[in-house]
Amino acid sequence: MLAAAIAAIRAPDDQIARAAAARQASLTKPPGSLGRLEAIAEQVCAAQRTLAPSLARRAIVVFAADHGVADEGVSAYPRAVTAQMVANFHAGGAAICALARAARAELVVVDVGVGAGTANFAREPAMTEGGARAAIERGIGIACALEVDAIGVGEMGIGNTTAASALASVLCDAPPAHVTGRGTGIDDAQHAHKVAVVERALALHRPRRDDPLGLLAAVGGLEIAAIAGACIGGASSGKLVVIDGFISTAGAAIAVALAPAVQPYLIAAHRSVEPGHALLLARLGLVPVLDLGLRLGEGTGAALALPIVDGALAAFREMATFADAGVEDRA
Amino acid sequence: MLAAAIAAIRAPDDQIARAAAARQASLTKPPGSLGRLEAIAEQVCAAQRTLAPSLARRAIVVFAADHGVADEGVSAYPRAVTAQMVANFHAGGAAICALARAARAELVVVDVGVGAGTANFAREPAMTEGGARAAIERGIGIACALEVDAIGVGEMGIGNTTAASALASVLCDAPPAHVTGRGTGIDDAQHAHKVAVVERALALHRPRRDDPLGLLAAVGGLEIAAIAGACIGGASSGKLVVIDGFISTAGAAIAVALAPAVQPYLIAAHRSVEPGHALLLARLGLVPVLDLGLRLGEGTGAALALPIVDGALAAFREMATFADAGVEDRA
Repeated sequence: MLAAAIAAIRAPDDQIARAAAARQASLTKPPGSLGRLEAIAEQVCAAQRTLAPSLARRAIVVFAADHGVADEGVSAYPRAVTAQMVANFHAGGAAICALARAARAELVVVDVGVGAGTANFAREPAMTEGGARAAIERGIGIACALEVDAIGVGEMGIGNTTAASALASVLCDAPPAHVTGRGTGIDDAQHAHKVAVVERALALHRPRRDDPLGLLAAVGGLEIAAIAGACIGGASSGKLVVIDGFISTAGAAIAVALAPAVQPYLIAAHRSVEPGHALLLARLGLVPVLDLGLRLGEGTGAALALPIVDGALAAFREMATFADAGVEDRA
Repeated sequence: MLAAAIAAIRAPDDQIARAAAARQASLTKPPGSLGRLEAIAEQVCAAQRTLAPSLARRAIVVFAADHGVADEGVSAYPRAVTAQMVANFHAGGAAICALARAARAELVVVDVGVGAGTANFAREPAMTEGGARAAIERGIGIACALEVDAIGVGEMGIGNTTAASALASVLCDAPPAHVTGRGTGIDDAQHAHKVAVVERALALHRPRRDDPLGLLAAVGGLEIAAIAGACIGGASSGKLVVIDGFISTAGAAIAVALAPAVQPYLIAAHRSVEPGHALLLARLGLVPVLDLGLRLGEGTGAALALPIVDGALAAFREMATFADAGVEDRA
C-alpha cells in the first residue's frame, strides 16, 4: 500500500503552472505585490491542475498517540494529558476545535496509539518497522478517503517534541542541542535533561537519514508516522497538505524522505518557536505562511493558515486583468 | 469635531484586561502557546470591554486620492491609475474586492480627492491645514457612522508612498533614504530620484514632528489624512482599527501624534516590504500580525489579518478551561 501510494503521486502540471504565472502577471496589481500569496496561488493551481484553484472543502486531521519517552520526564505535563486532550477535542473545547470552526474545516481526530503508544526510545526502539509502516498506512488510508481539497495535519502526544527533536537532529544533520526546544514549557534543567535524552537515544540506535523507516521506528512516534502517511496519501490523491508545527513538519520530512514527490503538495502553515522547526522547513524547501510565536500543535497553525491560502486563491480567481478593467499598466 | 472625537476616546478597561489574562491562563493549552493570538485577544477584550470579544461585523474602508507629487515621476504607474483603480474597486475586480469578500467584510470606497488631489509638495504645501483638517474629519465621520466592530483601513493613490516616506522620515526622525522604498516597483534610478524628491520637499517645508497637522498639510495626502481620521473616529466610537501597510500606518501615526489614546485600538495587519513601515510600526509600538511580503495597499493586508484575529478571539471565547475539561495542568 505504501509503495502503491507513492507510485500514484503525480508531478504538478508545468503547463498549468506557466499559465497561472501568466494570469498572475495580468491581474490589476503591480507584479509581485501580493508577495507570498502569488506563489501559493501558483502552487495550488499546478497541484490541482486548474486555473480556478480552491480549498473550499477541507479537514483538519489531528493524530494522537502516547510516547514511552514521556517516562523520562521530558514534558511539563503528565502523560495522561494525551488522552484527556483527545476527550477535549471530542467535546469541542480545545484550541483546534475553535480554530477549525473559525476556518470552516471539518475536524477529524484519529487515535493512532493513545494508551497503546510507543516504547521508551531512550531504552529501546520506539516501535518495530512493521509498526511504523502500519501507522504510515493508517495515515495514507485516512488522507485518501477524505473527500476534501486540502488536509491540515496536526497532532497531540505528550512527549512528542522529544521524538520530533530526535528526528530533526538526524534529518537535518544537526546536534540535538540545536534542534531541541522547550515543548509545552520546561525550565532550563528539564531542557538540558531533554537534550541528554535525545543524545542518548541517538547514540543507542544510531538511526540513519537514508533509512527513514528505520529512523521513524527507532525514535519516532505513531502520530508522526501517521502524519507522514497523511502527507503521502494527500499527495497521492491530489490534495494539498497544510502542515502545522514542528512535530507535523517532522512527519512531513519523513514523508518526503520516503517520497520526494510529496513536496509540491505541502504548504507550511507557520514557523513555531521550536528551534528545530526552521531547520526542518529549510530542509524541505518550504517557506511558512505565518510566524505568530505558536507552540501548541493540534493543527492550530494549519487552521490559521487556511484563510490566508483562501485569500491567495480568491485574489487569483476573482481579480480583473488590466485589459478587462481598463486600468493602464506600468508607465 | 476633531477635538470632540479625541476627547471621547476612552482608555481600554484595565479590569477587563486583567480578567482576560486570567481566563487566558485557565484555558486548555500551555501558557503562552498561542503566541501573538493571546495578546490580540486580550487587547480586543480590553478595547471592547467584554470577555466575549468579536469582530463579526467589519468593514474595509479604502480612501482614495490623487497626489500632485506624482508629477515628479516618482511612481511606476501613471496618475490616471488612481481613478481607474477606484472604478475597479466599484466593479469588484481589485485584489481588495476578492480579499474583503473572503474575509466577509463590507467594502467601502471613499473618494477624498480623486482628480481633486493634493498640490505637488516638491514645490508647495500639499494642502492647507484647513484642507488637512477637513479630510481628517471626513475620516472621523465615516468611522463613527459605520455600524461595525472593526474597521480595516486601506488606500489608493498613485504617488502616495512618496508622501508616506516624507511623513515617516519626520515622524521617525530618519533620513529619507532609510524610509523611502520602491512603491509599486521602480528601478534604481527612479528610486534615487524619489529619495531626492522627498529630501527636497523636507528641506523646503521643514515640517516638525510636534506639529502633526502642519506636517500632514506640508507633505501628506488627502487619503492619509482621512485614514488618520478613521483611526481617531474608530477609537472614539470603540471600534478596533486594523491598519494595512506603509501608507495606512503613516496615517495611523499622524492619528497617534494628534491623539495618543488612539494607540490601544490599533491592530497592525502586516509588515510590508517598504523600508519605512517597520520604523513606523516600531514607533507606534505595534507588532504586525502577518509578514507576507505584501506591497499592494488597498487594505489587502487588513483583510488578510481579519481571519487571524477571528481565530484569536474564537479560541479565547470558545476554549474549555483545565477545570471544565478535566485536563491536568502542568506537572
